[in-house]
Amino acid sequence: MVKNIYFADDKLVVLDQSRLPSEVVYLELSEPQQVAEAISKLKVRGAPLIGVTAAFGLALAISKYSGPSEGLKAYFYEVKEILAATRPTAVNLFWALKRMEGVFLAYYDDGFAELVKALKTEAAVMFAEDVATNEAIGEYGQALISRPSKVMTICNAGHLATCGYGTALGIIRSAAKKNKIEEVWALETRPVLQGARLTVWELMADNIPVSLITDNMAAYLMSKGEVDLIVVGADRLASNGDTANKIGTYALAVLANYHKIPFYVAAPLSTIDFTISNGSEIPIEQRDAKEVRQVMDTILTVADVKVFNPAFDVTPNSLITGIITEKGVLKPPFIEKILKLKDI
Amino acid sequence: MVKNIYFADDKLVVLDQSRLPSEVVYLELSEPQQVAEAISKLKVRGAPLIGVTAAFGLALAISKYSGPSEGLKAYFYEVKEILAATRPTAVNLFWALKRMEGVFLAYYDDGFAELVKALKTEAAVMFAEDVATNEAIGEYGQALISRPSKVMTICNAGHLATCGYGTALGIIRSAAKKNKIEEVWALETRPVLQGARLTVWELMADNIPVSLITDNMAAYLMSKGEVDLIVVGADRLASNGDTANKIGTYALAVLANYHKIPFYVAAPLSTIDFTISNGSEIPIEQRDAKEVRQVMDTILTVADVKVFNPAFDVTPNSLITGIITEKGVLKPPFIEKILKLKDI
Repeated sequence: MVKNIYFADDKLVVLDQSRLPSEVVYLELSEPQQVAEAISKLKVRGAPLIGVTAAFGLALAISKYSGPSEGLKAYFYEVKEILAATRPTAVNLFWALKRMEGVFLAYYDDGFAELVKALKTEAAVMFAEDVATNEAIGEYGQALISRPSKVMTICNAGHLATCGYGTALGIIRSAAKKNKIEEVWALETRPVLQGARLTVWELMADNIPVSLITDNMAAYLMSKGEVDLIVVGADRLASNGDTANKIGTYALAVLANYHKIPFYVAAPLSTIDFTISNGSEIPIEQRDAKEVRQVMDTILTVADVKVFNPAFDVTPNSLITGIITEKGVLKPPFIEKILKLKDI
Repeated sequence: MVKNIYFADDKLVVLDQSRLPSEVVYLELSEPQQVAEAISKLKVRGAPLIGVTAAFGLALAISKYSGPSEGLKAYFYEVKEILAATRPTAVNLFWALKRMEGVFLAYYDDGFAELVKALKTEAAVMFAEDVATNEAIGEYGQALISRPSKVMTICNAGHLATCGYGTALGIIRSAAKKNKIEEVWALETRPVLQGARLTVWELMADNIPVSLITDNMAAYLMSKGEVDLIVVGADRLASNGDTANKIGTYALAVLANYHKIPFYVAAPLSTIDFTISNGSEIPIEQRDAKEVRQVMDTILTVADVKVFNPAFDVTPNSLITGIITEKGVLKPPFIEKILKLKDI
């Protein structure tokens, strides 16, 4: 698998996902504003990867701090704020920054060198944890698939969204190793086309059978019996299992319900927001109208047409067959099972 | 409204819809193969307009026939076959060609000049009928809207799809005149983007409020109470009301059903195929993979990814609130009401 993030010689280097699949280009990020821009402009995307990227970015910023020591704490919070302001929906970002804050406060009195080392270590630990989380989700998820199946997915919850081999695509990869993937239906995922650009690229590189469709073709395939199950990633879960994920996910869940097709959410614990009781409390990012009016640089429509561009939607727990975490598969009703995970 | 088709000085001239909205270009079609290509490449599209275009194309071909008179009948059927082979789903094409065949056979013995005149007249009559049909559908449809409403539509069932002011968009235009349109949600309608390119352009030209969304955003708007009704066009109805229309229509119908939003089909009688009992008998056109892999000339994905590209889907009658024809609004159960229309 192509490297999508690494930290070396005091530089954070990320793969520019906005240029895939036509170009494989890496960006060196040395300033917090650059890290923030890489996240907000979707050069780095995917809930788990955003969290780890922000953690590395924060560690890097502190390591390069050269001001008076009494200004360090304020600087930490300034950088944390810059990174937190990039994208509102995926909770992993805030989860990662909070973990870094905990380490910062714990090591603050141990001297600058120790503090920097602890922050870098914490980011590296998060990276390693995410790799292990992907493996566990993949293993639990593949066990739900009993025979060669046609699996539908939206957006990219793959390697490019994580540090490892992905959440939804991790399940598909684990299942493929056991010859249980007959076909993956990849939704192109307008407006930013993460399905067409990233999921197709990842799966073809792994020789996993994949076919690309436009988002509005999913229901037709379901009606024809061409979809055995649906598995999607997650940007934020509420305590009751309501799940925010890429726009279009909710539609898939309603359609799956109508066609009696199992609908699974692959969600590392880092995507669970235990502080909110249901999905109505999840903020939905509204993005630039340009994303809808254009594809890359091509203008599709009347230049000044009004546009509505929510990046996510919320799928109610009633439409979810199971939530696949690194601790196992949760079946409904979710709320008590999710709250138990809080203390792990 | 911009002219989209006209017949003058023995030339058939059509607006090239594949280049809208960035360029307004007309094509002169003088040979049957040119007419066929304009239809198959979606330069002329929309079920009612395709029918009338084919009728004019057939009249034009016969008018230019200069071979031996004993070859005329074979030539008529040859041209009819070329035009019929362009697109399999919209039934108006076959309906129009059949009407022209009836006229051809009726006037065949009256001499060449009379025959040509009759064929041209029949095409012109179909054009005029379609204008009147649009008006009637618009009037019946607007009466279903009781207060300022937010209406969702897919693809383009507007002026650009017809000879008049449209079927689904005709209803919206009629309702807008009575101040009953608060917003039109236009789905962009991948892969060919008729919503983004054509519907947005038409409605903005008429100062009707329109917002553009990607296809996968429709469910989110429904869940937020932002959609009061859905109205779509039709390419072919079976006798029981099952309706083939642009890919993505079926998904909208399932989503409307889940959200208890009225779902209407605007369908001139020329889109009803009385010879088939249900939607499973409607052939679904599969189009070039390039349409999904690209937007205009921009390649979105891995160049050789497998693609599934059905141009239409079938919405079962159970998901349709009403069928709006030029003879009135049909409510379920449809089958007897539709069969009654056969004899009108």
